[in-house]
Amino acid sequence: MTPQEIKERLSACARTVEAYLARCLHGRGIPQGLLEAMEYSLLAGGKRLRPVLCMTAAGVMGLDGRTVLPFAAGIECIHTYSLIHDDLPAMDDDDLRRGKPSNHKMFGEATAILAGDGLLTEAFALMGTVAETVPADRVVRAMTEMAVAAGSGGMVGGQHLDMDYTARSGVSYDELRGMHAMKTGALIRAACVSGAMLAGADGDDVRRLRVYGESIGAAFQIVDDILDEVGDEAQLGKPVGSDAAQGKTTYPSLLGIARSREIAQEHVDRAVEHLRPYSGGDADFLRSLAQYIVDRVS
Amino acid sequence: MTPQEIKERLSACARTVEAYLARCLHGRGIPQGLLEAMEYSLLAGGKRLRPVLCMTAAGVMGLDGRTVLPFAAGIECIHTYSLIHDDLPAMDDDDLRRGKPSNHKMFGEATAILAGDGLLTEAFALMGTVAETVPADRVVRAMTEMAVAAGSGGMVGGQHLDMDYTARSGVSYDELRGMHAMKTGALIRAACVSGAMLAGADGDDVRRLRVYGESIGAAFQIVDDILDEVGDEAQLGKPVGSDAAQGKTTYPSLLGIARSREIAQEHVDRAVEHLRPYSGGDADFLRSLAQYIVDRVS
Repeated sequence: MTPQEIKERLSACARTVEAYLARCLHGRGIPQGLLEAMEYSLLAGGKRLRPVLCMTAAGVMGLDGRTVLPFAAGIECIHTYSLIHDDLPAMDDDDLRRGKPSNHKMFGEATAILAGDGLLTEAFALMGTVAETVPADRVVRAMTEMAVAAGSGGMVGGQHLDMDYTARSGVSYDELRGMHAMKTGALIRAACVSGAMLAGADGDDVRRLRVYGESIGAAFQIVDDILDEVGDEAQLGKPVGSDAAQGKTTYPSLLGIARSREIAQEHVDRAVEHLRPYSGGDADFLRSLAQYIVDRVS
Repeated sequence: MTPQEIKERLSACARTVEAYLARCLHGRGIPQGLLEAMEYSLLAGGKRLRPVLCMTAAGVMGLDGRTVLPFAAGIECIHTYSLIHDDLPAMDDDDLRRGKPSNHKMFGEATAILAGDGLLTEAFALMGTVAETVPADRVVRAMTEMAVAAGSGGMVGGQHLDMDYTARSGVSYDELRGMHAMKTGALIRAACVSGAMLAGADGDDVRRLRVYGESIGAAFQIVDDILDEVGDEAQLGKPVGSDAAQGKTTYPSLLGIARSREIAQEHVDRAVEHLRPYSGGDADFLRSLAQYIVDRVS
């Protein structure tokens, strides 16, 4: 696929997800002020990469991606909650997110904490609804996978390590890699794995999608670190070098930009390699998407 | 059952839950500092009312309560996370919880937020594990029920309304009742309902356990408000009148203590009435437990 085709497919799929996100919190008895804060962040744009991965992984394993849309939307709710809580004054204390005031700047700290809590919880309510059309044993398995990945041995644990590492110097490459595998990698990996599980995949199929997700997650983070260093128009509202300015250890700060790029490419190669057994439009899209991530910085 | 028998059964069941809670977070790859903060609050005591309700409700519907222990433990994780986040400086700003420093006083705000996030997420991972022994369709249904109850149209929404009402005067009886039905009632109700669902209950059986849970949840809150006013040795570390001192509207402040007691008893009667079709030790325990809640303040 050409970069243009990838972009078009990515945004077509993102639009489907967004149309669902725009209505999924209504009619649930959410107090108006809280609903507003939740939707402010949930509908603030973004590539919707995680739900797209979940839906496409289901497609690779033979289940129409639209069947798992509520589950995929739940993953985006988890991603959004993590951004809201990461921005809080007690955490990264960020005033801006995607060029707009962060949630707590807009609605106050209490409401931002609750908006995050609410999005995390609604995620599981949304995921559960796919049991109307997908066999329940697959749904429980996928929900459990997602909870483990988003939890304290995954994403939440990664944020804890990130706070810890920011406060000290001498973070090693292995520590940095382990932290990012938890903080950003786990959710991206689980998006791929849960999509495959919902399609009824098992054994080697799940294992391959797990390695694919892990690898693009790692590549994604390295590219993010590079873009933070060199600047990129997609990083709206985030000044160049802001992570480094916060004293965070990054891949370029440890390895330099050239070596960081090489490692990102190695991850992408590994991701693509693991999709070798699969053909068809969805598998092609996942392969192209992996390369597309790294091409953003070449 | 005599008060002594109720107390003994309650603490025997609580001990089973606690033994499980003490090990359930280990071996999950949780960073040490975060695990410590999560267990500090999770293992700080308490009556374990919600998991006891879940296990007993399963028993009433014919499934051994021990089968749903991991699910019940998940509910306690959700309850504990809500206490940690409610105590945060941006929320109720409480320095003490059960006579000990609150989580953020002990570990700092960032870790307390993450400990809460982690407990909420692990809850769903724990719940999912009961699919090893309970049919998956029941597990998804119970997990979804729990997510809706704990979410922004339930517990999280109730906390949002509580913050809102604390900041203004003239809160009506209906507003107060509606807020508490969400903030504390929803989780107690869902504990009963999910236990019944895991046992395969449906239709009228689920409906009756829902009314039972709703009613004891309402009674429980009224009794809590009364105890806040008159003092009780069980409210360790919480000074008498602390809610009133925070400017919160309470049942006694709106209706007086005598009328509040009457309404609590009406809720208990309604709860017991809905258990009429059920016999056996578990049903007897639920009936006695309902009355026991109100007898604490007679």
